[in-house]
Order: sequence, then structure tokens, then C-alpha cells
Amino acid sequence: MTYLDWASTSPPDASLLAGAAEAASQFYANPSSGHALGAAARAELERIRGRLAAALGAGPGRVVLTSGGSEADAIVLLSALRAQDRLRASGLSKRLRVVTTEIEHPAVHEQARLLQSLGLELVYLYPRADGRVDPAELAEAVTRETVLVAVMAVNNETGAVQPLAELARALAAASAALGTKPPRFHADAVQALGKLEFRPAELGISSAAFSAHKIRGPRGSGALWMQGELEPLAVGGGQEEGTRPGTESLQGAWAFAGAAEKALSSLAERREAALALEARLISGLASIPGALPLPLGRGPGDARYSPFILSAAFPGLSGEVLARALSDSGIAVSTGSACSSNARRKGRRVLEAMGLQPELAFSSIRVSWGELTGGGDIDAFLEAASTLYKKLKA
Amino acid sequence: MTYLDWASTSPPDASLLAGAAEAASQFYANPSSGHALGAAARAELERIRGRLAAALGAGPGRVVLTSGGSEADAIVLLSALRAQDRLRASGLSKRLRVVTTEIEHPAVHEQARLLQSLGLELVYLYPRADGRVDPAELAEAVTRETVLVAVMAVNNETGAVQPLAELARALAAASAALGTKPPRFHADAVQALGKLEFRPAELGISSAAFSAHKIRGPRGSGALWMQGELEPLAVGGGQEEGTRPGTESLQGAWAFAGAAEKALSSLAERREAALALEARLISGLASIPGALPLPLGRGPGDARYSPFILSAAFPGLSGEVLARALSDSGIAVSTGSACSSNARRKGRRVLEAMGLQPELAFSSIRVSWGELTGGGDIDAFLEAASTLYKKLKA
Repeated sequence: MTYLDWASTSPPDASLLAGAAEAASQFYANPSSGHALGAAARAELERIRGRLAAALGAGPGRVVLTSGGSEADAIVLLSALRAQDRLRASGLSKRLRVVTTEIEHPAVHEQARLLQSLGLELVYLYPRADGRVDPAELAEAVTRETVLVAVMAVNNETGAVQPLAELARALAAASAALGTKPPRFHADAVQALGKLEFRPAELGISSAAFSAHKIRGPRGSGALWMQGELEPLAVGGGQEEGTRPGTESLQGAWAFAGAAEKALSSLAERREAALALEARLISGLASIPGALPLPLGRGPGDARYSPFILSAAFPGLSGEVLARALSDSGIAVSTGSACSSNARRKGRRVLEAMGLQPELAFSSIRVSWGELTGGGDIDAFLEAASTLYKKLKA
Repeated sequence: MTYLDWASTSPPDASLLAGAAEAASQFYANPSSGHALGAAARAELERIRGRLAAALGAGPGRVVLTSGGSEADAIVLLSALRAQDRLRASGLSKRLRVVTTEIEHPAVHEQARLLQSLGLELVYLYPRADGRVDPAELAEAVTRETVLVAVMAVNNETGAVQPLAELARALAAASAALGTKPPRFHADAVQALGKLEFRPAELGISSAAFSAHKIRGPRGSGALWMQGELEPLAVGGGQEEGTRPGTESLQGAWAFAGAAEKALSSLAERREAALALEARLISGLASIPGALPLPLGRGPGDARYSPFILSAAFPGLSGEVLARALSDSGIAVSTGSACSSNARRKGRRVLEAMGLQPELAFSSIRVSWGELTGGGDIDAFLEAASTLYKKLKA
């Protein structure tokens, strides 16, 4: 099967899986145990954390080991409930505000909606037609009551790179104008890690969520990079300085650190290869009558987009039907986020949020690739898509 | 090193780790992806869930894959916040009540305390001197406002097996007398799985938390068995029927299922071996002047206790000092839960809760064993403990 769904997950690196199994056996004790075996596991866990911190560009921020990107997002978003509760307990009826975007991954989008149902005020920002959020719009949405802003680093459907540094500056300026300190600024960076230079400590954000399985690490491992204090809602044995309870998955963290190091050291060459595949895909799409890259007008090598993800519209044909037909022809692509396939709200939220006509959004598929993808894979996709589109379109 | 800290974690089964790595590679796609590779991963994940459900004795209940026992506990406990919020939103000032015990693992004990800080009413039940919770006391603590009861299956420090079926019956009777339906009854079953016959569906409880790494599975995998509906606080991509967000760790679940199957099929022989080690340990302790098994008077083969865990007091010597000296002599034991070593509240909460004098609690260590433990390990412990106790006690 030709695998072009890397944004959903990536084929794990077998050497990392084998090494993780070894680390699990070698350092099997509970890092919280006081005896010598526990101390050895603790020392190894902290070495792993240090490696991960370096590979993530953590700077002075700390790295909290989590079970994945979703949990890292949830820790940050749910902490807003404690801030709201503190106000309530002190007799204030003020509703705190959370500002996020209509294009977030469900781990943020749905979690924010739950905060709203629990009494917080929620504002979803819509991106411009290019899929990027306007810093001026963020500045307008921020109030004295805003406790949290969450904007993803790279969109998982359009590949749109969000201008986090500019958003952070706009947030700081707006907060200064309001006479308050800036709220926490969280970024889901799951699609940024290993795909572009991403150094959270240099962006002016407060926290970022990462996932191992998007960069050939194992499923079930992730990290939250954070600065400052954060009051989690899930508590327990005090692990991760109280931010994330539960015995740490040392072997998962080991494989994640290895995957992040590999991703970092190979970034330049992988980006170059990805740019070549992106160009090949965009020019190939141009030769399929009717097919359109998304956002409309996206060209190759545009720094506003990750060169690892491209959505495309096939007007007059349902994206779901095309994706299924492609799968039957041995080519794996998706229609948006895998996570969205389970979500309460169907439809093409992300594409429609940037103003795309529903019939184009409806006809779109997402193609995403990685280091094992070759030009032949893109060609196979283009050939199959061209044939199927001709055959199946209304 | 002689490893006698199995209640903290167990040496992972290397064949399960290797098999997990293979499963991760073979079924690498995202189970939520719509293409053929995603469908294959989904089918395998559901096969794994079925195996796990069978091994856990799930009956008609469903099995939710989690990142560990702590997360399984947190899902249940945090759901009480949604119930409280619903009341608040409808203008009722009634405080919902959570009833749990003073001997819970921090994943329940600390989480319950957080619920209290967020406005719920919290009652901690104290066990009797034998370390077991009295069903009559639970019945007394239940009110019409009680939304959740949480009592662990087997205590992680004393090994005390809690009478869950009787507690559930007392809860049902008390609720009937109040004219309400019984509240959710959750059991942290982390120390029960693989150690005794534990079939959650037959106990009258609503949910149970399990952890893979206590039964030679990997860290980072666990499960929540549950019946009925439950509103989680962490949401996202809708995985696990909306109960637990995030891409599932297929390989972790695979290894957990394998570990649970092995634990189930070898239960009788492992229990027999454990009972022999328990008897050897208790009789050995009797020959160390001053040393005492806990709870005081615990004898071998007492069905009220797990034969895999024994705490013992060495009056006049700090348990922490003894544990450290044992570690220096090559023997790994603990002083209570590994998780408690990070906890906010120090001291010996569990032992003191059953009325043990603080000086005895202070002098105690926990010894715990598993299928790789032999009589020689127990003898090595006894010899070292005897020598060190003589040398170090006040």
C-alpha cells in the first residue's frame, strides 16, 4: 500500500521500538522508588527528559512527559477550570474567557467547547482565506478576563503554519493595553515537530503539545513543554512535578527522545525532499482537469505551509468517496484529521472555517508524506486520483 | 539485586515487549483512519480489546484503553465535576458528595481531595484495624447527594483485600433506603489484577481501574472497565467512544492483553507460590526479635490479604533508613507506594489510617513479590533485615 497519511500517524522506526523494549527491561524499576533500581530508572528518565528537551528546543521551559499530544493539550486547557473555580469560590461571578481557533485539532477544539459548557466564555477565531490566523483578530478577542489562548503551530489539514511569534506579540501588546498580564498562550505543535524549525522557547508562547507517533516514535508518548506555573486537574502520585500523574512510560519517552533527535538532525534534508514532493504533487494536480490545491492558489515552496501536507479538492466528487476508492486502489490518504472521524461534529470544519465553499470542502482529501515517501508514491497517487476522478465525478 | 518491590512495578515480560514492537510496526496506521491500513489497525485494536475484556472478566461492561491506572481513576473521579457543574448550571446549590477511603492510592486519594477543593463534599472512610473498610460505615456515609464511591480492591501497602461485593450490597441497600439509585461505585483494582480472582462484572461495582506494568506488561498502558454512562472531562478526537481522547497505543494494549492473559492462566500456580513465600516471610520475621507483620497479627494464608504484599514493622528503626540500608545491601523493598514518595502529604497515611501507632507505622517497610521471586530472595531479605535491624535500631 502507498501510504500518504503521515499527518495521521507515521510508520514507527523499528530500531527505536527495539531500543525502547531494551530500555524498558534495563530500567524496569519505578522511577519513584527509593531503592537503587528506582534511582537508576529515575536517573535514566531524567537523562531522557534532557535529550527530549534539547531536541524540542525547550530552552528554559520544562518538559512534562505525557501519553500523547491530546493529553498535553488537555492538561493546559483543563487548568482553566481551576482558575474559573477560584474566582467562583471567592464569590466573583466573572466568566473567564478562552480564545482559540475554529481550525484546531479536536483535542483543543472539543476540549474548549467542554470548557464553555462548564461556564467559561469561548471565542473561536476564524483564519483568513490562506488558512492563517490574523494577529489583529487575536488582539481584538483578548479581554481582561482572558485566561488562555490556544493556537496550533501547523494546521493538520491545510498545513498552514500559524504566525505564533506575531500572535504572541499581538497578545502581549493587547494585554499591555488592557493593563493585564498576557494570558497563557498554548500551541498544539504536533504537526510542527520535525517538520519545520520549531523552538517554543523563542516564540513567546507559554506551552506546546508534542506527539511521538507523528515523527516515527511510538503511539502513547507525548510531551508538554511549558513555562510558568500550571494547575492541572488530574492529580495523583505527584509525578512530573505534579503536572501529570501516573508512572512514567520510560520506554515511550526513550523512543520519543530518539525520534525527536533523528527528526531534528535530518530536518534540512527531509524538508528538501518534502518540498520536492510537494512541487511534484502540486504540478501533477494541475494536470488533472478540475482538481485544485487547497487553500486555493497554494503553490509549491510557499513558506506559509508545511511542505509535508497538502489538501486538494476534486469538485463534483465527495472526498470520502475518492479516499475510499483510492484505498481500494492501494493508496492511503485521508479526509482531514483521523481524530475528526470520531468527532461529534461531522463536516469539514477546518476547510470551511477559512471560507472555502462547502462543495469544495466536501470534495477534498488530504495527502501527507514523510521520509519514506518517494516520487513514485506521489506519481501513483496522481495516476490513481486522475483515473478515479474521471470515472467517479458527477 | 534482589527485587522485592513488585507492588511498585514488575520486571516486564521481554516476549511481550518484543511482540508489542512487532504489533506497532504491523498495525502502524491510525485506527481512526478510514483507509484499508487504518481499518486493519482498527480491527486489530478491537481484537486486542476483546482479549483484554475476556482476561479482565469484563462481562457486559466495556473496556476503555488508557495510559495507566492513574488515568483510569482520573476519568472516573473527574466526571463527578460534570455532575456538580450540571447542578450549578441549573441553579441548585446542593454539593455532591464523594465517598472514598483514607487508604486509597494517591491517584484516588489526591484526586478526591482536588474535587473537594473544587466544591464537592468529600468523606474519607477509615478501615478497621485489619485494614479493611466496614460496609456499615460506607452505608452510613452515603447520602442522597452522593455521586461517587471509590474503594480500592486490594490495598497497595497492607495487601488488605477490600470486601467490594459486600460494600456494593451495603451501598445498594443504603441507597434504596434513601430512595435514590446507588451512586457510581469505582474500584482501583491495580493490585488485584493477576493476584486474585477479580471479576468486576460480578461485584456490583460500576467501574474498575487496571494497570499493565504491575503484571509484567509495559508502563504507559492501563484500562478502565466500566458499566453505564460516564461523562469524561478530557475530550477530543472521540476515541474510546468519547471516554478517552488520543490515538490509542495499540502496541501497549497488545502487550497489556498478553500480560493479562498470562496472569489469568497462571493465577492458581502463582498464588500458590506466593502463599509459600508469604508463609516463609512471616515465619522468618517471627525469628527477628521485635519485628512484626502488619496489620498486627497477620498470619500466613489469611484470605483477607493478598499473598503478594506484606508490610512489616521494625520498631525503633525508621522504615526509610532500613529500606535504604537494604538497598545498599542489594535488596529492593519500599516504604509504601512509590507514587506516595512524590506526594504532597508525607508520613504513613495508609498504616496510620487503620489505627497503627505512628511509631510502628514509621518503622515499617513493604515487601512485595511476584512470579520471578524465589524462596532464596525471601531468605536474603530476612538475613539482611535481621542483621541491619540489630545494627541500626535505636
